[in-house]
Amino acid sequence: MKLASQRAGRDGALLVVSRDLATAVSAAAIAPTLQSALDDWERASPRLQALYDDLNAGRAARAFALDLGTLAAPLPRAYQYLDGAAYPSHIQRNRQARGESVPDDFFQKPLMYQGISHGFMGWNDDVRLPSEDDGIDFEAEIAAITGDVPLGVDAKGACGYIRLFVLLNDVSLRAIIPGELKRTFGFLVGKPASSLGPIAVTPDELGELWKDGLVSGTMKCWVRGEELGSIETGTDVAFHYGDLIAHVAQTRAFEAGTLVGLGTVSNEDESVGVGCLGERRALETIRQGAARTPFLKFGDTVRIEHFDRSGNSVFGAIEQRIAPLA
Amino acid sequence: MKLASQRAGRDGALLVVSRDLATAVSAAAIAPTLQSALDDWERASPRLQALYDDLNAGRAARAFALDLGTLAAPLPRAYQYLDGAAYPSHIQRNRQARGESVPDDFFQKPLMYQGISHGFMGWNDDVRLPSEDDGIDFEAEIAAITGDVPLGVDAKGACGYIRLFVLLNDVSLRAIIPGELKRTFGFLVGKPASSLGPIAVTPDELGELWKDGLVSGTMKCWVRGEELGSIETGTDVAFHYGDLIAHVAQTRAFEAGTLVGLGTVSNEDESVGVGCLGERRALETIRQGAARTPFLKFGDTVRIEHFDRSGNSVFGAIEQRIAPLA
Repeated sequence: MKLASQRAGRDGALLVVSRDLATAVSAAAIAPTLQSALDDWERASPRLQALYDDLNAGRAARAFALDLGTLAAPLPRAYQYLDGAAYPSHIQRNRQARGESVPDDFFQKPLMYQGISHGFMGWNDDVRLPSEDDGIDFEAEIAAITGDVPLGVDAKGACGYIRLFVLLNDVSLRAIIPGELKRTFGFLVGKPASSLGPIAVTPDELGELWKDGLVSGTMKCWVRGEELGSIETGTDVAFHYGDLIAHVAQTRAFEAGTLVGLGTVSNEDESVGVGCLGERRALETIRQGAARTPFLKFGDTVRIEHFDRSGNSVFGAIEQRIAPLA
Repeated sequence: MKLASQRAGRDGALLVVSRDLATAVSAAAIAPTLQSALDDWERASPRLQALYDDLNAGRAARAFALDLGTLAAPLPRAYQYLDGAAYPSHIQRNRQARGESVPDDFFQKPLMYQGISHGFMGWNDDVRLPSEDDGIDFEAEIAAITGDVPLGVDAKGACGYIRLFVLLNDVSLRAIIPGELKRTFGFLVGKPASSLGPIAVTPDELGELWKDGLVSGTMKCWVRGEELGSIETGTDVAFHYGDLIAHVAQTRAFEAGTLVGLGTVSNEDESVGVGCLGERRALETIRQGAARTPFLKFGDTVRIEHFDRSGNSVFGAIEQRIAPLA
């Protein structure tokens, strides 16, 4: 099924959305917010599924035409966001351009960090930031949203705790990140709030795209109106969602609503382009001696959209403009 | 005023607690949970304060004798936990014992990381962990709980967004952490869920202990029944709470209920002891060539308590036993 959150309060108001995104219906009688549905998934999900089936069949009372412009992030604030670096070419290129290497154990265990899990912008919100000099960048990702994950779950079992997938723009400040990583305590000031795509989709709804712990399909990215990349998301990865979840769950249980990103999508084949400007600049540095593509400036736009094998949008698009603080 | 959460559901049930911790009263009519009170602090706080005044005067209807054993963490799950390393002697000793140095810019800007913000244990919960071989340690801290903090707030202004303070045991796995920090993405598997003291206290309630962005008083720690440290918390720091909040708020607003820790308490004077076993072992390594104090084993106990100038407990104690997974 497909879920979304209408802009309302701190957590949005849960909607069930039809398969074709044409109509929607309030899920308030089942769960007022997506977080509350995830907190009580065993009870809520069969009822949401029944409402979804009714909506698709044109039988849902009080269904209305969906206006994507009214949607917030499906989960505007969450208790945990874990982001990985599962596409090796993304990390290898970035590090190579800086004259650094990937950690020795990069392929032995997932490289991950704990990120900011609140303030998620809606798909069409302006990205408001204090300075153009911070090296503003986007990162195209697909994030899993989990239920309650028990401590000690294994990689295969971990996939069974994924409730939804959502598009994610992991906003990054490239001028700040290298200095922050040198201090070894991870990302903080260099990772401001991120954005989520409008529609959260259950694994079963993905059909054949959801396989072996990965979401296949094509992630397309445009910056300033120019196509920057067209990346296959189900290949060229060192680890899948279950691996990432199991890695962190070695010593902690997860609260329902945890977001787990695989990291910026990237393919070994350079000709398909990239899923962020930093990697394009890294490739320019490696191949041509210097970065030429500028980072994002106020007024620039970013568009991210993931497509299935028939060219249908899977999660709806993220389409944002970079802007100064209001 | 003093607030606490009775064990109930995922977020606990908000209580107002009397100054002497003898009685309590449900705050459900004002806000069902501490998170909901923080979400709506302008409205909720004067009403909670009035209830607190009534309770202390013996005028609160439905007041009952407080049983500390019924309390959960005041905020069992939060949207953000930021932890600093503001006591230089803690970091210098740990790094020196490993043959490493502190980052060059350690005194220029706060060293901080984004930590796990859910799964906070109650003050007397067992710390259940998978293995004694992970180098189980505690860390004694006082954390601020903020309201909504605007992006760009300065260090002085940031102190005005602190709503509460609470005792925190930042559980750490010393065998995992050095390898994790080498990967530069910060703490993750090496930092399982932490614990909060039973009573959250407003800055005004701290009186003279809350001054210049710091909480003074004496933090006492006991391990296996032995006193490990008696640390002055308001001195020997490189940065105060406002500095830490402002550092991260350069590029993000905070969601209400953010926890901000100053890091493991530590004094330059070695004779007062330490606020975690890692630092004691570091001092043993530096002074005697090898660590001798063992990390925590299953069955071991930890006690943390912070005292005012008259020897009164400020936040109630954290008292936990280390135990294997159930």
